[in-house]
Amino acid sequence: MDTLQILRMNGGEGETSYAKNSVVQQRKIMSYESPSIEEAVTDILCKNFSETMGMADLGCSSGPNTLTLVSEVIDMVNSKSQKMGFSLPEIRVSLNDLPGNDFNDIFVSLPTFYQKQEEEKGKGFRNNCFISCVAGSFYGRLFPKKSLHLVHSSSSLHWLSRAPPRLAVDAAVPLNKGKIYISKTSPSSVSKAYLSQFREDLSLFLKSRSEEMVPGGRMVLSFLGRTSADPATEHGGHQWELLAKALTSMVSEGRVLEEKIDSFNAPYYAPSLEEVRNEVEEEGSFVINSLKAFEVEWDAGFQTDSACEIQENKRKISSRGGRVAKTIRAVVESMLESQFGRDIIDDLFVKYAELVDDYFSRATPIYINLVLSVTRKGP
Amino acid sequence: MDTLQILRMNGGEGETSYAKNSVVQQRKIMSYESPSIEEAVTDILCKNFSETMGMADLGCSSGPNTLTLVSEVIDMVNSKSQKMGFSLPEIRVSLNDLPGNDFNDIFVSLPTFYQKQEEEKGKGFRNNCFISCVAGSFYGRLFPKKSLHLVHSSSSLHWLSRAPPRLAVDAAVPLNKGKIYISKTSPSSVSKAYLSQFREDLSLFLKSRSEEMVPGGRMVLSFLGRTSADPATEHGGHQWELLAKALTSMVSEGRVLEEKIDSFNAPYYAPSLEEVRNEVEEEGSFVINSLKAFEVEWDAGFQTDSACEIQENKRKISSRGGRVAKTIRAVVESMLESQFGRDIIDDLFVKYAELVDDYFSRATPIYINLVLSVTRKGP
Repeated sequence: MDTLQILRMNGGEGETSYAKNSVVQQRKIMSYESPSIEEAVTDILCKNFSETMGMADLGCSSGPNTLTLVSEVIDMVNSKSQKMGFSLPEIRVSLNDLPGNDFNDIFVSLPTFYQKQEEEKGKGFRNNCFISCVAGSFYGRLFPKKSLHLVHSSSSLHWLSRAPPRLAVDAAVPLNKGKIYISKTSPSSVSKAYLSQFREDLSLFLKSRSEEMVPGGRMVLSFLGRTSADPATEHGGHQWELLAKALTSMVSEGRVLEEKIDSFNAPYYAPSLEEVRNEVEEEGSFVINSLKAFEVEWDAGFQTDSACEIQENKRKISSRGGRVAKTIRAVVESMLESQFGRDIIDDLFVKYAELVDDYFSRATPIYINLVLSVTRKGP
Repeated sequence: MDTLQILRMNGGEGETSYAKNSVVQQRKIMSYESPSIEEAVTDILCKNFSETMGMADLGCSSGPNTLTLVSEVIDMVNSKSQKMGFSLPEIRVSLNDLPGNDFNDIFVSLPTFYQKQEEEKGKGFRNNCFISCVAGSFYGRLFPKKSLHLVHSSSSLHWLSRAPPRLAVDAAVPLNKGKIYISKTSPSSVSKAYLSQFREDLSLFLKSRSEEMVPGGRMVLSFLGRTSADPATEHGGHQWELLAKALTSMVSEGRVLEEKIDSFNAPYYAPSLEEVRNEVEEEGSFVINSLKAFEVEWDAGFQTDSACEIQENKRKISSRGGRVAKTIRAVVESMLESQFGRDIIDDLFVKYAELVDDYFSRATPIYINLVLSVTRKGP
């Protein structure tokens, strides 16, 4: 099934919402991206394209992070224009996510956003910055030709457009039995199928952006990946390994059908630095400025004593595992619901939290966050 | 209070939603606008501005009508380009409404919209038509400079940015006692205050659009108005007269405070043809191509035998009044709630339906719908 139909961060601002459970992690990631974005903004201003500057944030999601990025970029453009003695360009901001995203949440927060910006930057700001929202998959065209100078995407490109279709070819003999992502026990055909889907998707992503961006335009992308060449490395997808384990434990309880696990594969891929570099070079529209890897702890370095408590089905969990479970739940709930049903979700994440806690007791689980900065070749 | 904060068509697709209660009326109005839009599209294509065409729909609301207009315009552009031997321009569509509008409803319907368009117009259509949503009041800037070729707005410009502030000056002696809009019994200061607010708003609207539109760009606006010079004419605002009557009947029941009626004035104005013409000429950015008035029955000419039934508080109403009450409720509910509280709404509209039925028995209630077509002067 297309990711378009099943991937959706949990909306609203409730206990299980993406907004409530993504703040710390996203801020951390943003701090790694910031230097690349700043460098890109300076470059764009130096190139002095025109009086207008188009930027897009792909996979903007909803919640407080969405406008934080916009606000940071505007601040950069503002202060750099001043330093360089340019007048502030007209800024066009496009916020993009899949159609199921909670865009209403973004729109209702805009009046406050504009008010704050006008207090900081003066009364005319509203007439110089135009924010719009665009729904659709970034694996395809989203914006008019040559309309963008800066493209940003954070924590989104590790989502594939679909699970690798080859894995579903023969359901009678499931290729990736008992697993939902590349695992140490997965045959090599599984990781090959994933890599192939990743390459197809990234190539289409780059091709689409190359048509939408002006020559010389800049793009900063951050997404989960890996530094190891081994696609089954723990840092690449251990969150899925534990989720498969939690699901499997519910098979014996009769709450999850084994076939449902066998036939589910996460539409996710954590590419290696090399795989990213190769694909960008092969597609050919962009020059790589930098490609870096950063480690981010699963709970983004929360203090362990600021324990988070979740109470679900009368079981109380105060743990790092509980916190991690909430961050993962906010992202994958919609997808798991469509495969396994709504009823198991609460219990599944209680089990998941326990497994994560157990994992924490043996290792410090980390994600590898890749930050890729490229320039659109031109003219 | 700003209309921004209190005006919102009822969202979703439920019994009291705008989507469910606006279809017939809006289709009727669209049929009156259609020739003007068609003429505007032809003019824009003849002027052959560039390979891209920007259009905006202001006050797009949500529900089935929203994309019907877009679809109609695209069809026009498509068939006219073909006839004229031009290649189809890249179409940029901006859908605008206030931040409280149900934009999510629009976004989730986009994949189906694109699919249908691709079936009709071929596989490449998706890469030639870019739809985005923009939240904010059209009494102010919404879009980048010179980015629009065609602007459309239907059934929105009769909403003022706020109720005339002069009417709230001295609450001890309410100027418009017992009324919520210009009434036959209102002193002339009331209609003057309304006209003044209308002129201020329309002028700001035109000024904002003049900056956003290319010289030679076209705008088609339709909104409620009147043909009579008398601002208290029944065709201008009798819907408010009956609503005031329904509210007043609840004062004796102790459910509505008299002061609440006295201090409420609808942020609405039905201008005369002359008032519109004068303001457009005075603002000076646009040339009037045409300004016409059309009569639309309150229930848009529904067959009386296709009686609509609403069941509220165990009272069943099958009537034209009930149908009209639902169309009005879908539009003004949010505004009345913030002034009179949520509790009275169901009963208020039962009373309102009775009053409308009574009115129908004596007259054929009509709205006057004005259609204004203008061209942006330039360069």
